[in-house]
Amino acid sequence: MKLHKIVLSAFCLSATVLTAQTPADYVNPFIGTSNYGATHPGAIAPRGMLSISPFNVAFDTKGIKDPLEKDSRWLSNPYVNENRFLTGFTHVNLSGVGCPELGVIITMPTTGELKTNHLDYGTTYSNEKASAGYYSTHLTKYNVKAEMTASTRAGVSRYHFPKGEANILLNLGLGLTNEQGAMVKIVSPTEVEGMRMVGSFCYNSPELAYPVYFVAKLSKPAMNYGVWHKPETYKGVEAEWMWYNGDVRLKEGFSREVVGDSIGAYFRYKFDKEEIVEVKVGISYVSIANARENLEKEIGVKTFADVYQQTKNEWNKQLHARVEGGTDDQKTIFYTGLYHASIHPNVLNDVNGDYPQSKTNKIGKSNNRYTVFSLWDTYRNYHQLMTLLYPEQQLGMIKSMLDIYDESGWLPKWELNSTETFTMVGDPASIVLADTYLRGLTNFDVEKAFQAMLKGANTLEKNPIRPGVAEYWKLGYLSVDGGVAGPVSTTQEYNIADFAIAQLAKKIGKKSDYERFNKQAYSYRKLFDSQTKLLRPKYSNGKWYEPFNPASGANFEKNVGYIEGNAWQYVYMVTHDVKGMIKMMGGERAFEKQLDHIFDSKQYDMANEPDIAYPYLYNYVRGSEWKTQKRVHDLIEEYFQNKPAGLPGNEDTGVMSAWLIYGMMGFYPVSPAEPIYTFTAPKFNKIILSLDKKYYPNGELIIESNASPENLYIKRILIDGKPYKSYFITHEELKKAKNIRFELDRKPLNTKK
Amino acid sequence: MKLHKIVLSAFCLSATVLTAQTPADYVNPFIGTSNYGATHPGAIAPRGMLSISPFNVAFDTKGIKDPLEKDSRWLSNPYVNENRFLTGFTHVNLSGVGCPELGVIITMPTTGELKTNHLDYGTTYSNEKASAGYYSTHLTKYNVKAEMTASTRAGVSRYHFPKGEANILLNLGLGLTNEQGAMVKIVSPTEVEGMRMVGSFCYNSPELAYPVYFVAKLSKPAMNYGVWHKPETYKGVEAEWMWYNGDVRLKEGFSREVVGDSIGAYFRYKFDKEEIVEVKVGISYVSIANARENLEKEIGVKTFADVYQQTKNEWNKQLHARVEGGTDDQKTIFYTGLYHASIHPNVLNDVNGDYPQSKTNKIGKSNNRYTVFSLWDTYRNYHQLMTLLYPEQQLGMIKSMLDIYDESGWLPKWELNSTETFTMVGDPASIVLADTYLRGLTNFDVEKAFQAMLKGANTLEKNPIRPGVAEYWKLGYLSVDGGVAGPVSTTQEYNIADFAIAQLAKKIGKKSDYERFNKQAYSYRKLFDSQTKLLRPKYSNGKWYEPFNPASGANFEKNVGYIEGNAWQYVYMVTHDVKGMIKMMGGERAFEKQLDHIFDSKQYDMANEPDIAYPYLYNYVRGSEWKTQKRVHDLIEEYFQNKPAGLPGNEDTGVMSAWLIYGMMGFYPVSPAEPIYTFTAPKFNKIILSLDKKYYPNGELIIESNASPENLYIKRILIDGKPYKSYFITHEELKKAKNIRFELDRKPLNTKK
Repeated sequence: MKLHKIVLSAFCLSATVLTAQTPADYVNPFIGTSNYGATHPGAIAPRGMLSISPFNVAFDTKGIKDPLEKDSRWLSNPYVNENRFLTGFTHVNLSGVGCPELGVIITMPTTGELKTNHLDYGTTYSNEKASAGYYSTHLTKYNVKAEMTASTRAGVSRYHFPKGEANILLNLGLGLTNEQGAMVKIVSPTEVEGMRMVGSFCYNSPELAYPVYFVAKLSKPAMNYGVWHKPETYKGVEAEWMWYNGDVRLKEGFSREVVGDSIGAYFRYKFDKEEIVEVKVGISYVSIANARENLEKEIGVKTFADVYQQTKNEWNKQLHARVEGGTDDQKTIFYTGLYHASIHPNVLNDVNGDYPQSKTNKIGKSNNRYTVFSLWDTYRNYHQLMTLLYPEQQLGMIKSMLDIYDESGWLPKWELNSTETFTMVGDPASIVLADTYLRGLTNFDVEKAFQAMLKGANTLEKNPIRPGVAEYWKLGYLSVDGGVAGPVSTTQEYNIADFAIAQLAKKIGKKSDYERFNKQAYSYRKLFDSQTKLLRPKYSNGKWYEPFNPASGANFEKNVGYIEGNAWQYVYMVTHDVKGMIKMMGGERAFEKQLDHIFDSKQYDMANEPDIAYPYLYNYVRGSEWKTQKRVHDLIEEYFQNKPAGLPGNEDTGVMSAWLIYGMMGFYPVSPAEPIYTFTAPKFNKIILSLDKKYYPNGELIIESNASPENLYIKRILIDGKPYKSYFITHEELKKAKNIRFELDRKPLNTKK
Repeated sequence: MKLHKIVLSAFCLSATVLTAQTPADYVNPFIGTSNYGATHPGAIAPRGMLSISPFNVAFDTKGIKDPLEKDSRWLSNPYVNENRFLTGFTHVNLSGVGCPELGVIITMPTTGELKTNHLDYGTTYSNEKASAGYYSTHLTKYNVKAEMTASTRAGVSRYHFPKGEANILLNLGLGLTNEQGAMVKIVSPTEVEGMRMVGSFCYNSPELAYPVYFVAKLSKPAMNYGVWHKPETYKGVEAEWMWYNGDVRLKEGFSREVVGDSIGAYFRYKFDKEEIVEVKVGISYVSIANARENLEKEIGVKTFADVYQQTKNEWNKQLHARVEGGTDDQKTIFYTGLYHASIHPNVLNDVNGDYPQSKTNKIGKSNNRYTVFSLWDTYRNYHQLMTLLYPEQQLGMIKSMLDIYDESGWLPKWELNSTETFTMVGDPASIVLADTYLRGLTNFDVEKAFQAMLKGANTLEKNPIRPGVAEYWKLGYLSVDGGVAGPVSTTQEYNIADFAIAQLAKKIGKKSDYERFNKQAYSYRKLFDSQTKLLRPKYSNGKWYEPFNPASGANFEKNVGYIEGNAWQYVYMVTHDVKGMIKMMGGERAFEKQLDHIFDSKQYDMANEPDIAYPYLYNYVRGSEWKTQKRVHDLIEEYFQNKPAGLPGNEDTGVMSAWLIYGMMGFYPVSPAEPIYTFTAPKFNKIILSLDKKYYPNGELIIESNASPENLYIKRILIDGKPYKSYFITHEELKKAKNIRFELDRKPLNTKK
């Protein structure tokens, strides 16, 4: 059975007259819910702390080959589009990440007899609808329509029950996270509070596992309610007397706290006609009291329609680009890209400003604390896009990163809800800080930022950000025998970070720092093997590591030199030194040949970050710029589509979408911490970017073109009416421009002799 | 190694001058801590909600034959005297019960490296001292002296640390209960709060498992502190990535809630000299806030010495009998008996009056709510003793039982912390209510009590107190095929309860009820088999159950007719109809012969309740009363001693001790709900019972005798100087008496012709 997915192109709750489609109307939250995109179709507000997602990754796998089931494989999302068995709606979720985490506080409407085991109460479903801030489906077994919307820290679900017995479950045992343990307390027939342990993202820092608190309020008092608890099954002598060993216990009407790994609350009704029950949930990472306050302040007595309308308005504000021309599908993937790029980093602080600090175990105060910094991913293009489109949000993220430094003593690497998970490698925060400053968002404490960068770069011992940095400074590279994972990749990452530090040092007048870091930024060259024309793992004694198979490491296979990639996918990840690389390769043609080889031999991996800028590197080869346009076009066509499998793989908290958005707009920030962009052919006839006048005095950038399915190649670029000769443009020039006009053609512009 | 147990005959904390030994000084809390007595030597106040007991029943059993280890057998106490491995001090405990429960909120001082697994941090110990309200020991591995005292709802421990690293652990994973699950939150370097799930006493009512809340305060701020958590070990695919799978996690400084089955908090110090750290703990069954209030109100800033002195004073007030003559050992077992009889029922309400109601899931208000009603045990002699010595406490218990009826709709049977565990059989509450009223404590709502009794007796369907009661009314007995456990025993229990109801009905003028219940009270006679002269299990069609082995059922062996006993142990459990039984047996001599046979063939079981009155039944046989004196004397000598194994078996919440106390005082309430006593030879030369003038206008009863190791037999009894001719006395007569003088002799008084 193939379920019918309907994009809500004209969704409206009330009988208002249909007006023109807004950006939010184009969003298809199902994109990325298959092919490991790891997004979910749930209801969420821009950068929301809460989201309500259908949860369909827990089912009986008997007889199913390679099930996309949470415990049967590495599965990082609460929802997989092709799955069929729904066991509730999760209230905290990550979107587009590569590890299982959150996906808890599950509500579920059922009818008839009370069942608390998800394998018993789960159901197929149909008629899924999702838009920005809204999701609904029809639960087959129960004939219940469930719809949900969300504000930043709270959400509302509406369950449309038929006549008869109805149940609302709050399942605190089930979840995507690998953490266990919850507490629940029923406050009244209409209210329940509690917490659920989460944490150890990517199997890192399990000791930092932490609670997420919630308060849930029901619009109708339950006839009966209670808590269920399925304790661990005893073994041995004790078990002989425990006739109830491992059984579920129903604690009817119980109103004191209950804790356990597998617990939940239930609320039962008996309706003599069709009835709607609304469940409003507030969450907090600080306390139950704050979860209640978040719920009261954000939702309170607002109706479902009010909350949805408000969130939709927020989405329209957030998705403020206007595009003309292009197909509906193109508009959909573009706006959905912006939507996906506006989910993480998300708000961490409660409405009262409370948030859990990093490392200190204290509660901090901020009205602008962000979390979910997947920086190894996002330093490459995501934050550049935020700097351009959402400078205030980007500054909030920068300030959050500096607060994390203040709190924990280190800049973040892969931060999640104030825990540092130390996922991936390198020193990506330094790159983001430098890039943001160099692109003109200077309204933060750059001196502190610079000191934080220096600490990460210069601390030779017990450095959680840059392990092996002593050897790196000494040899210029991390050796195979040095004990640091992926020594080639990590050397490259450190180089890019050092380049970033150098650029910032130069900008803020730290001359000697500039010189030191600028020199170090090219040390990766010591790993260049002129024979294979690749970067190769090397021992600390200077000898190459053998055997060397450049292809080894593709498809996330573990290998000696690289992190999530192979020699082909890393060799050109030197965006700060493309010219140096060209020289090492023996000139532009050799460089181009190698690049062609990578694409043509299918070594290019669109689904991961190291080679994400490769398609744009043809712009460094005079006369071959058309290949950038071709490659970008082909990659968009192949990997980015208006369908659940319409992302190349993990969305990576907005990075894949950022790549797409740039590709469709016609420019790309090819070199992190270098405030430049490089051009490709846009996909729309007109793109109007409203920009924040505080940072972009023009307040608007219009990109025009004669884009069409045939017109893939740049013939000429005009900026504010004047022909523009280069395929690169600085951020400053872009900022000054009001109009960029691409004249496109069906044929590549062959400028080679 | 045999540890030296020291009874604190003259324990004093400060340098005050030694005065005469007070009753509390005689208490040896080690009595009953071996031979399955199931008492513990921990610090406790009279009827305290909290007690602090050493916990030594969790250890590595490898190579140990029949270990007295909590998970290796049915073990119902936190401490066993002959065990050697201590893993902490529990803060809620049951005393002298037959099922494992409570034994949680474990604190433990250690030194050096932090270890959180009890098998690693546990230690041998020496120099145990215990007195009423006090316990101390020396922990071998750590050279730490640990001492503890308690008020009603709070306790203080003092840990004397040597110089160096010190740790205080709060282990919420380990416990005697079979329930799991706890929550902990560190509030500050000197305070921690949380809860622990307990419940399912005797493997009953697991769905009613409930939290006990606590707040602990330390006298010195910890240098470091945190929470540990050992999550469940994952299996399968997920586990492959979890390098930390099943490992303990240390959450240093973590200050939000943590839940889990195996969690705890730790506080670390580094002392440059010997230091004492006090840990004050308050508990509540209502909330953390109440636990904090209990701690503040009862202990607050009081010193350890103050708390102990206050509790000792309370014990001296409670143990208000004065005895003269007899050995120190006799005084010790007598006062320790009173001590053990003053532990349960215990206070359930918090200082502010809050307590968890039974069944309603509401919080009630009372300043006098008792819990732990092991009524199948206690109806036989315990409450009669309370009525005499502690009438206000007994009335508090009666009122609590009626509150339980109001709350749950039923009188209690085996109530524990407002959960009805339905342990054992019969309708014992009715007997206690009637007996109390008939002995003159009438200051309760007897009409409500009577209605409650009628409900238990007359509800034919879904009757949780008297299953099978419809058949019982119809046939006069419970049949083997009726499905009720121990049909003979249970018929007898219902008969005694009906006798009690009849007696009360008569007293309060319910004539027709009297007649109906009085008639039913002797229906057990239908189970009398004149051939075997025993009560036998019978089918509903009137046929005897075959095969019939009277001995089957001894030593708690399961059998068809009886509960925890056999035909010998039950045949004379008809204390309300001894004369009827004598008649059925064919006269006094036949009755006596059967009784002799039971004792002589070792069928008499001192360790359990059904035959507990047997030694006194010789008083119903004219001329053989000396046998009562002999049997009681011999049983005391054999089973009740000043040593850990000095109880015959389970203390049964004061019942064994009540039996002993009566036996030593020279009278026994032989027939529950019949306000009489029967005499035996006392063991002291003088016993001065201070009685509550409100109920006993004389305010005092003096029992005198020429008791000695030789003078075991009653020659003559004088009441207020006048010879008394009977071996029975009514409660009213006893109440009027000021002085009962026993003239004892070395030889039995043979009055037989």
